[in-house]
Amino acid sequence: MTETNNLSSIIQNVSRRELRDLVRTQLQMLLKAGDLQGAKAILVSVQPADIAEAIEGLPKAMHALAFRLLSKDEAIEVYEYLDYSVQERLIEELKSQEVRDIVDQMSPDDRARLFDELPAKVVNRLLEQLSPAERQATAQLLGYEADTAGRIMTLELISLKENFTGSQALERIRNFANASEMIYYLYVTDAERRLTGIVSLRELVTSEPEQIIGEIMTRDVVFVHTDTDQEEVARLIQRYDFLAVPVVDREQRLVGIVTVDDVIDILQQETTEDIYALGGVQSGGDNYFQMNLLEIARKRVVWLLVLLVTNTITGTIIKSQEDLLAKVVTLTAFMPLLTGTGGNVGAQSSTVVIRGMNTDEIRSLGVLQVIGREAIAGVLLGGMLGTIATVWAYYLQGRLEVAIAVGVSLVAISILASISGSALPFLFRYLRLDPALMSAPFITTAVDVVGVLIYFNLARVILKL
Amino acid sequence: MTETNNLSSIIQNVSRRELRDLVRTQLQMLLKAGDLQGAKAILVSVQPADIAEAIEGLPKAMHALAFRLLSKDEAIEVYEYLDYSVQERLIEELKSQEVRDIVDQMSPDDRARLFDELPAKVVNRLLEQLSPAERQATAQLLGYEADTAGRIMTLELISLKENFTGSQALERIRNFANASEMIYYLYVTDAERRLTGIVSLRELVTSEPEQIIGEIMTRDVVFVHTDTDQEEVARLIQRYDFLAVPVVDREQRLVGIVTVDDVIDILQQETTEDIYALGGVQSGGDNYFQMNLLEIARKRVVWLLVLLVTNTITGTIIKSQEDLLAKVVTLTAFMPLLTGTGGNVGAQSSTVVIRGMNTDEIRSLGVLQVIGREAIAGVLLGGMLGTIATVWAYYLQGRLEVAIAVGVSLVAISILASISGSALPFLFRYLRLDPALMSAPFITTAVDVVGVLIYFNLARVILKL
Repeated sequence: MTETNNLSSIIQNVSRRELRDLVRTQLQMLLKAGDLQGAKAILVSVQPADIAEAIEGLPKAMHALAFRLLSKDEAIEVYEYLDYSVQERLIEELKSQEVRDIVDQMSPDDRARLFDELPAKVVNRLLEQLSPAERQATAQLLGYEADTAGRIMTLELISLKENFTGSQALERIRNFANASEMIYYLYVTDAERRLTGIVSLRELVTSEPEQIIGEIMTRDVVFVHTDTDQEEVARLIQRYDFLAVPVVDREQRLVGIVTVDDVIDILQQETTEDIYALGGVQSGGDNYFQMNLLEIARKRVVWLLVLLVTNTITGTIIKSQEDLLAKVVTLTAFMPLLTGTGGNVGAQSSTVVIRGMNTDEIRSLGVLQVIGREAIAGVLLGGMLGTIATVWAYYLQGRLEVAIAVGVSLVAISILASISGSALPFLFRYLRLDPALMSAPFITTAVDVVGVLIYFNLARVILKL
Repeated sequence: MTETNNLSSIIQNVSRRELRDLVRTQLQMLLKAGDLQGAKAILVSVQPADIAEAIEGLPKAMHALAFRLLSKDEAIEVYEYLDYSVQERLIEELKSQEVRDIVDQMSPDDRARLFDELPAKVVNRLLEQLSPAERQATAQLLGYEADTAGRIMTLELISLKENFTGSQALERIRNFANASEMIYYLYVTDAERRLTGIVSLRELVTSEPEQIIGEIMTRDVVFVHTDTDQEEVARLIQRYDFLAVPVVDREQRLVGIVTVDDVIDILQQETTEDIYALGGVQSGGDNYFQMNLLEIARKRVVWLLVLLVTNTITGTIIKSQEDLLAKVVTLTAFMPLLTGTGGNVGAQSSTVVIRGMNTDEIRSLGVLQVIGREAIAGVLLGGMLGTIATVWAYYLQGRLEVAIAVGVSLVAISILASISGSALPFLFRYLRLDPALMSAPFITTAVDVVGVLIYFNLARVILKL
């Protein structure tokens, strides 16, 4: 008891992050020394999420050993926080009885997500071992398409009837609280299990015990369908500041709820996919830093090859201008400046437009208005940069015509880059492709092609060649 | 009543998004026609967040008119959902009595964030008009630094004492529920208001009414300090799946709580800033699509100028190689391919590393391990792309030495780009600068400089020039 209190007071004084590092290094040391009792003591009064991280930080061979230190209840909680790859390894290494206990106790939505990652053979074996009720719940969730509300919802909810009194409802909550993930929103259904209203535990606790649920509930319930995309579910919860949202089937029957903690993880995962797409990396939901290198190379090379081919077009254009470049070699020196700046302006435009689409911030403006604004921004930026580039180019090589060709090209390229950077994501969305494919790497490469064309042609006109 | 029911059943059958568009267009039509009664009717049983969006979608001149359609209670709720720019305009346009009513009723954390955006003169005028309690609460929040837990926390919480019984606690909750943003987590404090435990409403409802809070509460409370960065607060709530986290001052006294709905918005805002940084756009928390164009140009030109200067270095290197380029003009044609691909490989590496830092996914690996992995990925990618580029370059221009120079350069550039793309964000973090500054635009430009150097020198060696 004193030891626990001491650890508690340590917890008060170090930051959570330092604590996590401490637990991880201590655990590893004690396990290496074979001191299982000491290792067990270290984990007392540590949060499950932190224990999971400590286990993930251990060498792979120690995962099962460390996991076995936990009590059965702890083990189940910690398991849900572990990375899929670690969960998978534990399933292989633990005894089948241990695995059965854990998997049977997991909440069905977490279990369905784990099963998504496991080989079909393992899933079938595990499904057979589940208790009938759990097996049915999991099979039901797995029946919905990936990335939909049906797949991420939890089935563990408490529903009420309109004719319940407040105290009857509280009694029901008391009885079912342990089997329910979220007891702060209670959903009201009719005889056919159709959703008719919602009442919060806050309303329930503050109302009179004799009041009828039908009188205190809100009838205009915001809900989603089982096939609603998970990102849309997440945006909805974010928009209305909800703690959960109910999921109904085609007959408006209540089948589950999606809770806010899952939503935060979904938003993070979707954002990572967006950011990877912006950086030209194909993503698939796995943790990049846990993937093997061949997988990584495969995920990255596709885009690089596409861009390599596009870059060849730029090369071909340059090659076709060999006569011009041979006459005025100094023109070559300004190519990186022009294509580089054009690429950067285009990358800026496509970045803000793609992010604006994902967060819906762009909705207050029409498509043409967005592109128009970017075009004007392109004029402003081109004007500033073009002036500076002209002076700079003149200073560097002393020929006014070359300097003017560089400056005027930069203005034209800036405008063009802003317009294509903002318009191409819209075009892709219209074609029902992912707008993020029109991200910085692609825009940069595309602007290169048109940029050198503009530059060489302007140079020919201005230099009269 | 029938009308409301009809609208309710419509709500059941169209998607939320269609509904929002419908409300917005209808509202605009009715306001233009001067039919205020009709406009009012349209807004009955629409969610405050949706009303706010409908108002934002109206022409600016109609904002105040539409806002006045709302009842006082509705107006307060809707106001909190409006964009800062619209909130600001309403403060200018509404009568001071209307403004006072709304601002006085806002929750102190939302009010503090609004005051952050308003001119100091307006803030002082509004502060004077607030009731003494609200004025004190706001002044307290404004005393904390921007982007800290102190600034975003709400002061409206319910705290309990250890010696309360369950039913005493529930009684207290019933009395204070209306003045509290979050009643599902209850914090326990001692006589000096120091945080000693936490009990959830779930635990309270399911425990016996006579049980003492001290017995059912959890003593190991995860908390943050008033000066903890808001992003760290958000990550903590995300990590532990909390609905809220308590905020304490230096003496461990409970001063407020941060709730999960605020956290989602913070994560989105921080992500937008990260993404903007990745795209080379300086961000400041405002909605890009509401900013005026001069502001936008100012926010974008800084980075472009930095990169323009860097691009000049590439130009200078090319200029210094004029003799080589004059002899073998065809070398110029492969420059975009080499610098472009190098830039893309580097952009991929820096994107995954920067995102990994922000989400903490990278923590399971050490710095050297991450850079090592990227280096090997660079070798693999360089090998594949270099082979293809050699064949392609030979096919295009028929000189084997040039083709080999291109291919070998590409391998070297890929490796170098992967290493610098992954190492520079770490270097920047070590120097306590934002790692996102080492994003795609910068890496692309930096790789250009070294890329052409490698290419020209390899070409000289291989072509014996």
